[in-house]
Amino acid sequence: MKLLRYGAPGAEKPAMIDDSGTLRDLSDHISDLDGSQLSDETLAKLAALDPASLPAVEGSPRIGPCVGNIGKFMCIGLNYSDHAAETGASIPDHPILFMKANSAIVGPNDTVVMPRGSTKTDWEVELGVVIGKTAKYVKKEDALDHVAGYCVVNDVSERHYQKHLSGNWTKGKSCDTFGPTGPWMVTRDEIPDPQALDMTLDVNGKRMQTGNTGTMIFTVAEIIEHLSHLFTLHPGDVIATGTPPGVGLGMKPPTFLKDGDVMELNIAGLGTQKQTVKADD
Amino acid sequence: MKLLRYGAPGAEKPAMIDDSGTLRDLSDHISDLDGSQLSDETLAKLAALDPASLPAVEGSPRIGPCVGNIGKFMCIGLNYSDHAAETGASIPDHPILFMKANSAIVGPNDTVVMPRGSTKTDWEVELGVVIGKTAKYVKKEDALDHVAGYCVVNDVSERHYQKHLSGNWTKGKSCDTFGPTGPWMVTRDEIPDPQALDMTLDVNGKRMQTGNTGTMIFTVAEIIEHLSHLFTLHPGDVIATGTPPGVGLGMKPPTFLKDGDVMELNIAGLGTQKQTVKADD
Repeated sequence: MKLLRYGAPGAEKPAMIDDSGTLRDLSDHISDLDGSQLSDETLAKLAALDPASLPAVEGSPRIGPCVGNIGKFMCIGLNYSDHAAETGASIPDHPILFMKANSAIVGPNDTVVMPRGSTKTDWEVELGVVIGKTAKYVKKEDALDHVAGYCVVNDVSERHYQKHLSGNWTKGKSCDTFGPTGPWMVTRDEIPDPQALDMTLDVNGKRMQTGNTGTMIFTVAEIIEHLSHLFTLHPGDVIATGTPPGVGLGMKPPTFLKDGDVMELNIAGLGTQKQTVKADD
Repeated sequence: MKLLRYGAPGAEKPAMIDDSGTLRDLSDHISDLDGSQLSDETLAKLAALDPASLPAVEGSPRIGPCVGNIGKFMCIGLNYSDHAAETGASIPDHPILFMKANSAIVGPNDTVVMPRGSTKTDWEVELGVVIGKTAKYVKKEDALDHVAGYCVVNDVSERHYQKHLSGNWTKGKSCDTFGPTGPWMVTRDEIPDPQALDMTLDVNGKRMQTGNTGTMIFTVAEIIEHLSHLFTLHPGDVIATGTPPGVGLGMKPPTFLKDGDVMELNIAGLGTQKQTVKADD
């Protein structure tokens, strides 16, 4: 099941996509696609609906972030062995965690705005994991039971802010619009193995990142286990699980985004994001 | 004006405290004390109410975090010159920023739970700044106009998690219950100079931290200026502005919290927090 949210920012409505690709409105069944509606029971009720009985959404509305009211947006750094090699970093002993401010979250095709003066804005295609069931002190064997579904995330990053502003990475990760999330959340029953997903990112039609979640250093289950021993993961929390090789910082010479650039991201089965970059004035 | 929230976790109601110390319920005037109710206009309307006309709250209810639905909880590290000296750290060029997970936020007198196996849980009394008006690219001269009010924050910290789990500080700052916030938000009209507030923290009745916001390296206004150039500060966001000397990590030998310890925090004019520490089993 592919679940999403459409409409103006802050006023999105829930929907699903039927087999023909038509958006079907779910407003009569759930108030929003947020943490309160991600339980196995609620998702089973939605799965039991006949899509043809749901109102078809007219036109081509904006697609919002696929989860509303995200509680905490956690990001794992340097989590692909081939990306760690690219940056020259050593393999971490534990998943590297940083937070992306909730205020950075936008829809999958919204404009990405580089803050004033930014010269090192970079891209990162990532597998996003949406928590559906509260997780505390969870074992990795049980961890995926706490996942509602998966989505694409672009962990947009300003490298100067990330590394040279005394700021614990968060500064370079939390600029407004630096968290495109979606287009859909695909429920976990349709992703039997989250460690076998091809992923790509193009800039202006040129392939920059090519990867597969199989080269993650810490698997989705291991990340959930680790984090759930530090704090509670709540329904509606999202974890971006790191990026494969091919970011601008790793290029020789390093190459960053500029006004007018277009990023296009894809993860197998999870859909496509496409963002235009704008320099803030 | 002292504004607060009382009642069971997740079901708090808004209130103010009258001159005699009685809680007066505000539910007939605002839905909650959250980002949607922190504008100058709303606060002026509340200030115009006759407290004696508001229902007195009976009994001694739990006090919740003084702001509901906090958007992002930002923390500034090493922001007191005397605390930086204590830890041996050099003075940072910019405010050090890290995020505390929203799921860590609790009321001012709620139990602080050390996660399983924790041996280095530490205390940090801090001045909390509640944003009332959207701030983007703000100059420091105008920054305090964006503040709704101030409160006490205990930036509880697990030092091993903070420093040795590959985690960008966030891991040691985001454990459940590690963000006691309140008891009240005091509106900014009552705090003409946020850089002249005495603050203390006791553990088991022994004075551990003594400080004054006058020794901050970056003032509240400078912090807001800096952060607002990175991303938008929204109403209901909170900034914890760093801690003065006297944390457990800085003692010789380092001394940390244990099950049953009691922390008591005070900032002049902003009230008192009191938490009992519990080791999670």
